[in-house]
Amino acid sequence: MTKRGMLIVLSGPSGVGKGTVRKAIFDQNNNDFQYSISMTTRQPRPGEVDGVDYFFVSKEEFEERIQTGGMLEYAKYVDNYYGTPLKYVNETLDSGKDVFLEIEVNGAMQVRAKSPDGVFVFLTPPDLMELKQRLIHRGTDAMDVINKRVATAVGEIKMMQNYDYAVVNDEVNNAVEKIKTIIRSERLRVTRVMPDYLGMLGEMNS
Amino acid sequence: MTKRGMLIVLSGPSGVGKGTVRKAIFDQNNNDFQYSISMTTRQPRPGEVDGVDYFFVSKEEFEERIQTGGMLEYAKYVDNYYGTPLKYVNETLDSGKDVFLEIEVNGAMQVRAKSPDGVFVFLTPPDLMELKQRLIHRGTDAMDVINKRVATAVGEIKMMQNYDYAVVNDEVNNAVEKIKTIIRSERLRVTRVMPDYLGMLGEMNS
Repeated sequence: MTKRGMLIVLSGPSGVGKGTVRKAIFDQNNNDFQYSISMTTRQPRPGEVDGVDYFFVSKEEFEERIQTGGMLEYAKYVDNYYGTPLKYVNETLDSGKDVFLEIEVNGAMQVRAKSPDGVFVFLTPPDLMELKQRLIHRGTDAMDVINKRVATAVGEIKMMQNYDYAVVNDEVNNAVEKIKTIIRSERLRVTRVMPDYLGMLGEMNS
Repeated sequence: MTKRGMLIVLSGPSGVGKGTVRKAIFDQNNNDFQYSISMTTRQPRPGEVDGVDYFFVSKEEFEERIQTGGMLEYAKYVDNYYGTPLKYVNETLDSGKDVFLEIEVNGAMQVRAKSPDGVFVFLTPPDLMELKQRLIHRGTDAMDVINKRVATAVGEIKMMQNYDYAVVNDEVNNAVEKIKTIIRSERLRVTRVMPDYLGMLGEMNS
């Protein structure tokens, strides 16, 4: 029996640059994990290719997939659906390959509930850590602006608590390197390699 | 307040090459973690230097340290004590630096009980995974030899279950690279970086 692959989920607040980091990861040719392309009902933007950037489908097709349990996770934003088709993820994991998802925070929590042994990485905006420094040094923001920024930061930190790792998106290359380090490290977890060892012993004893 | 450093524990079965891997790690000059030198009552071997390879102390001094709670972990092998002085580890962690221990499995379990948030890496002999292959291809071992090897492997896998990561010591450089990857990755754990974020918010709100 092939050992099931590992599910890697990259998520984070809107606008943090998840898509840019994911593209930079898959622009490299040395990845030993597969990208699961998302599905959406929104129109392709100029330059976007069906089956590369997204699977572009009709609202009817997407809703039928939801009904028949065909989506690992999905959400509706501004009247359009976005989600991850279950079949590709399951077949790839079953074949022993690791799968990489780049999805919104709502979707990530749906996946976490179904696949608690996945690796969940939260991409944080650099200004979450630089916020205080900047506010102090600038000293020109109105209190309501500062309060709003702090409230946003608090909300993002609360989201982070549901993840395994936090990676600051200070520079795309740094974030890419950190995410790949996490993936390499997670493959060495005792809970993940134990089946290999137990399998070996089982076969030896049989 | 400085964030407390991370405790990294390298252990594994006798003869697996823990010392060689640890020396190879600290032969590199780019480490951002500190080696905690072990203490022993055995005689220095030719070439071993006090305060570099070990702290060499008398049996009386070692036993006094045990009595006064001065050892993080210790064990007795062949009438000699081996252990980790608590003071250096605590002071270094308190200063915010990460500390690396290379210790026997008994000691590692003592440390795990006291510091469950440490990172515990189990170094496995390459033959644990190659065992089956070799036994099949060779086909010349007597059954009692095979059984003994399997029993040893089972024992080592049981030990492994108490660790976070398993690294095969197939080649020293590979093992070193994997251990350093684990350390870099563990620094990105949400549970470890959360205090930084919460601290920042606390300071902002004050």
